[in-house]
Amino acid sequence: MPKKRKVFFLSDRTGITAETLGNSLLSQFDDIEFQRTTLPFINSPEKARATVETINLAASNGEPVIIFSTTVNNEIRSILRQSQASFFDPFDSYVPELEKVLQEKSLHVEGRAHGMPDVGRYESRIDAMNFSMHHDDGQTRKGLERADVIVLAPSRCGKTPVCLYMALQHGLFCANYPLTEDDMETRRLPEHLMEFRHKLFGLILSAERLQQIREERRPGSRYASLQQCLFELNEAEQMYRRFAIPFVDSTAMSIEEIATLIMHEKGLRRQTF
Amino acid sequence: MPKKRKVFFLSDRTGITAETLGNSLLSQFDDIEFQRTTLPFINSPEKARATVETINLAASNGEPVIIFSTTVNNEIRSILRQSQASFFDPFDSYVPELEKVLQEKSLHVEGRAHGMPDVGRYESRIDAMNFSMHHDDGQTRKGLERADVIVLAPSRCGKTPVCLYMALQHGLFCANYPLTEDDMETRRLPEHLMEFRHKLFGLILSAERLQQIREERRPGSRYASLQQCLFELNEAEQMYRRFAIPFVDSTAMSIEEIATLIMHEKGLRRQTF
Repeated sequence: MPKKRKVFFLSDRTGITAETLGNSLLSQFDDIEFQRTTLPFINSPEKARATVETINLAASNGEPVIIFSTTVNNEIRSILRQSQASFFDPFDSYVPELEKVLQEKSLHVEGRAHGMPDVGRYESRIDAMNFSMHHDDGQTRKGLERADVIVLAPSRCGKTPVCLYMALQHGLFCANYPLTEDDMETRRLPEHLMEFRHKLFGLILSAERLQQIREERRPGSRYASLQQCLFELNEAEQMYRRFAIPFVDSTAMSIEEIATLIMHEKGLRRQTF
Repeated sequence: MPKKRKVFFLSDRTGITAETLGNSLLSQFDDIEFQRTTLPFINSPEKARATVETINLAASNGEPVIIFSTTVNNEIRSILRQSQASFFDPFDSYVPELEKVLQEKSLHVEGRAHGMPDVGRYESRIDAMNFSMHHDDGQTRKGLERADVIVLAPSRCGKTPVCLYMALQHGLFCANYPLTEDDMETRRLPEHLMEFRHKLFGLILSAERLQQIREERRPGSRYASLQQCLFELNEAEQMYRRFAIPFVDSTAMSIEEIATLIMHEKGLRRQTF
């Protein structure tokens, strides 16, 4: 039975930075079961005091409690620091050194990251998402000239999540197109994609994984048979090689990794919002 | 003309942690124009040496260069540290202290965060995304009992992005429903939503902002008129109040903030992938 430890992510805004940093560090300790709580929007001394009470209650059993905090307001931080917990604060750790290197004073204003959006960038992010939804699964051929990338793959290989992720997280215009049996039998790319060959990126999975996913969709169907999965994946890979389309076997990859690989491969600038 | 500084985000995997941490810190220095480069998948000494060359080239003009690095392999990090740059590394800063607090040795294995997905969690994330796409804009009434949250708002108030964000980033099953003029004239919630009242969350915007967004969609239309926007937003707000539906004016909020507020308000556990 693994050791349990309580972890709090504290923020004056969303808590995304505290969570991302904290989870990345905690992932280095996999014998411990972490019980995570995110407390966002701690933007007043009252909320800070209430947070300290919550944490001290959690710490009352005497076991070590860990805090990752990204609040920037000095008064609020000095209150949060009174918690009975180990306090990890990247602003404390890095801002003084950054001020030296950059020869600038920091703002000490809360919630710049993930804060009030620049309207133009917000629009472009929404446009990217709308484009990617409308160009999901080969729904339309219109406007592909605007696409940053066009993801190809057999059905159920994970085109949609990676495209929506790149749209939402990085403001990229992502289309995706399912390779059909017709494409595989003719062994040719759909005509309307030929002119956009440079935008194409292919996905494959292991046949076992694809079978498992399709089986959940249509149990016992030909579509879900191992033989059919092997056929489609093999044809897809040959197609990618024939047309020099970069591709990856994403069986063991997270959506974030697939997206990063595609952006890296295509030299796409990743915006952060 | 603002001071320019080059920033590199280095990682053995996606670079998401380095970017999130770095951008959050850099957002405290808004008089400086940062030129950001993310170099992911630095997972071999060769790639590390190539990275150092890239960075030293960027630093050759003598201006300070900043690195945020989250690689965990000691050999790779020792190579990266040879770069002519200020090196910020949360693993160096925090892992020793975490090892003390947790009384455990860390793994020093790369890419646990955003790394190879647990199949079950991957599935639930994909299921959440599929559910949210199928339940976008009131497309279907089926399966609403499975929804974690149902977002209500007049057309173009930003229901879709926040729902897809919560699905992709936190594995939540999110439906959204557009309040129509019919709903507003009857001043009643759609019948099929009544039984799910406890799952509802409302959005409004400022009328000026909504007009601006709709104007881009349908210039000069009644739909985009300030008067129509005022009417719909006013009716929506009254509806939220009448049925005790929590709501927020998201005019000045980012997608991340709206999502965080909804999850916080509804007590929804946020998964991180």
